[in-house]
Amino acid sequence: MSPAQDLSARELSRLVEGLSRFSAPGPGVTRFVYDDAWCEAQRWLVEAAKARGLEATRDRAGNLYLHDASVRPGARVVLTGSHLDTVRNGGPLDGPYGALAGLLLAAELRGSCEPPIVGLVTCEEEGSRFPGAFLGARAMVGELAIGEPGASRDAEGVTWAEALARAAANGCAAPGGLDGKAAAPFEIAAFLELHIEQGPVLESEKLALGIVDRIAGFRRVRATLTGETRHAGTTPMRLRHDALAAAAELALAAEHAALAMGDPAVATAGAANAQPGLYNVVAGSCELRLDVRHVDSARLEKLAGSIEAAAREIAKRRGVTLALETVSRQEPIAMSDEFVDAASGLATERRIACRRMPSGAGHDAMILASAGIPSLMLFVPSRGGISHAPEEFTEPDQLAAGVAFARELLPRLATLAARGSR
Amino acid sequence: MSPAQDLSARELSRLVEGLSRFSAPGPGVTRFVYDDAWCEAQRWLVEAAKARGLEATRDRAGNLYLHDASVRPGARVVLTGSHLDTVRNGGPLDGPYGALAGLLLAAELRGSCEPPIVGLVTCEEEGSRFPGAFLGARAMVGELAIGEPGASRDAEGVTWAEALARAAANGCAAPGGLDGKAAAPFEIAAFLELHIEQGPVLESEKLALGIVDRIAGFRRVRATLTGETRHAGTTPMRLRHDALAAAAELALAAEHAALAMGDPAVATAGAANAQPGLYNVVAGSCELRLDVRHVDSARLEKLAGSIEAAAREIAKRRGVTLALETVSRQEPIAMSDEFVDAASGLATERRIACRRMPSGAGHDAMILASAGIPSLMLFVPSRGGISHAPEEFTEPDQLAAGVAFARELLPRLATLAARGSR
Repeated sequence: MSPAQDLSARELSRLVEGLSRFSAPGPGVTRFVYDDAWCEAQRWLVEAAKARGLEATRDRAGNLYLHDASVRPGARVVLTGSHLDTVRNGGPLDGPYGALAGLLLAAELRGSCEPPIVGLVTCEEEGSRFPGAFLGARAMVGELAIGEPGASRDAEGVTWAEALARAAANGCAAPGGLDGKAAAPFEIAAFLELHIEQGPVLESEKLALGIVDRIAGFRRVRATLTGETRHAGTTPMRLRHDALAAAAELALAAEHAALAMGDPAVATAGAANAQPGLYNVVAGSCELRLDVRHVDSARLEKLAGSIEAAAREIAKRRGVTLALETVSRQEPIAMSDEFVDAASGLATERRIACRRMPSGAGHDAMILASAGIPSLMLFVPSRGGISHAPEEFTEPDQLAAGVAFARELLPRLATLAARGSR
Repeated sequence: MSPAQDLSARELSRLVEGLSRFSAPGPGVTRFVYDDAWCEAQRWLVEAAKARGLEATRDRAGNLYLHDASVRPGARVVLTGSHLDTVRNGGPLDGPYGALAGLLLAAELRGSCEPPIVGLVTCEEEGSRFPGAFLGARAMVGELAIGEPGASRDAEGVTWAEALARAAANGCAAPGGLDGKAAAPFEIAAFLELHIEQGPVLESEKLALGIVDRIAGFRRVRATLTGETRHAGTTPMRLRHDALAAAAELALAAEHAALAMGDPAVATAGAANAQPGLYNVVAGSCELRLDVRHVDSARLEKLAGSIEAAAREIAKRRGVTLALETVSRQEPIAMSDEFVDAASGLATERRIACRRMPSGAGHDAMILASAGIPSLMLFVPSRGGISHAPEEFTEPDQLAAGVAFARELLPRLATLAARGSR
């Protein structure tokens, strides 16, 4: 590690530690959009930006843009950043790493790129407080559902619009509220998001960097199997229509289908809620929660289709009824080919141990890319593949190496963006 | 059906209907021990017994004995009956059928047997209000755990002892409360319990009567599988330690083991509670609730052992940890051989389509037989094998045929009991 990188690693560690102090009580970091910890964290970021010579602009959703004073509203810019909010009892890095990287990169590259580099700190990426996810990024690009801010409610019944109005009154968002129009105050020429991997691939392959070329699409499917509620002592095995046994077969069929298709296909049964859920009663119904992902649309469709076919076969054979409901879905999205190539080229020049890889998780970059903005994500390793937990950790020099790479890459991306290229 | 049987069928139907009116609000019948509906039902039974020339004696647990005035405390008697309490939203027959049969049989056989026939109406067989089950029968024979009445609490935190004291103050139990001594006011020479099958065997084989020769023992085992909570999008299939997938395999292994052993082996996974239980998270832990039963001790042990071995193999292969806890257990118990033979002989004489069969469910007869009392159970068919549900139903003439059979059988059982035989 060079002395500059070492300095950067220490600075980044201090910033990560500083930001992680803004949290609701409890283990790890809990910072829900617009809550006290979140507002204080945002103000702290604004002060940190000012200390580095940057100005801060908030949009009407509460997203924050850190930029040189010369960058005026409406300017064409290259954004780099990530989100400030966390899941409940999450870690210090998922989101904040990229947001802090954006702060440092905007400061270090100030005045040296065209379009200029602007740090981005989005809000409510996780959907921890309000239903759905990527609310901040979707507001930026005008991709909200009609009436969503007034209809989306948190656990206490407060609407997004109400919570946002209070945040605006507190100075944590621009006034005006959200309409159907894009909230971003700039024309976005390109987007780069740094993020921890949240998976074990880079660590297990001893790589410093992941260049994300695609973000997986997903289907979330609620499979409800309905059999016959019967006495567990008096109903012979061959006369049963056991909804939990059917759900167990389906969970394993989903796992098998993803294994058979191979990486990066994944399929997960995360819950099996049986009714009545007692020891001595054969379950009459069971809700299985399935999440199916792939980076390729056709493969995703095929994987979901093969799991659905297995579900129908299992239900028919066991004499249980099956209801399948897709509760949410997202199509896979490609990162900019030119940006991926630029990052790969730079990594080769600098002999950085890296790989192209898909992202299995959704990110703000997915929303911006879907809106037609040339985008790229870079991953740094996650120890043990853990995230969304207090144990979330990446070595400071790995974090710094990601920022150092982005510092070299961003001028190249700006040049590509200046040409209007995708 | 003879005119006498027809009369008996109508009388029984009237009694069943009359008793089912005593219920807490909601679908079906909900009659928890000592609640208002239960106390009123008990008083109604006492009145019905008096109308048939019988006296009623309550013991200190709230069990009810219906007998001729000449039968005094301490007398050696043959009991026949079942329980008055129901599960929540249960049916009109599980328990009440045998209790009403006891009332009718005690009245009809009054003065004709030695030892005399006494109707028995037990309480809290289901364990719907207080933890555990068979509380009334266990109190009868002095098989309570030390301190159980003061420690066992209902959902509102009321102890069994407190609820019982209130019932006694209301006249629904003899005063004095429960100690370690048997609460039954008589010496019990034998016990006959009539009950609906609660399973589909008699109906599917078109038989009128089941002569229960054994009551299954059971093991209830909580299997807790602990893997790694991971992001469902970012964790490749081959790097997972999915607790729900492991639990699903175990549920199917239990089903397979019981099927492989054949009837009457049963094994049921009634619940699989995964944490955190979300679509997009690989479950880090899962609690599987297993119920394993057999009528033969050695086979029960073997079945439970093979499921445990499967659990260990699955856990090892998947890299998850396994904790097995036996939350309750009951050894199989045989009914009196002589009583079974007597019933079979009578059925043959009367050309009644019947079979010997095990009971997969526990019953009060299990408790009394375990206490050394020669006991027998008779089953009548259950439509669709359904019980513990409002739809619980048996044709009135099938109910009456069971009572008519018991009326002929009881004098023979009394004769056997008089010899002190088992």
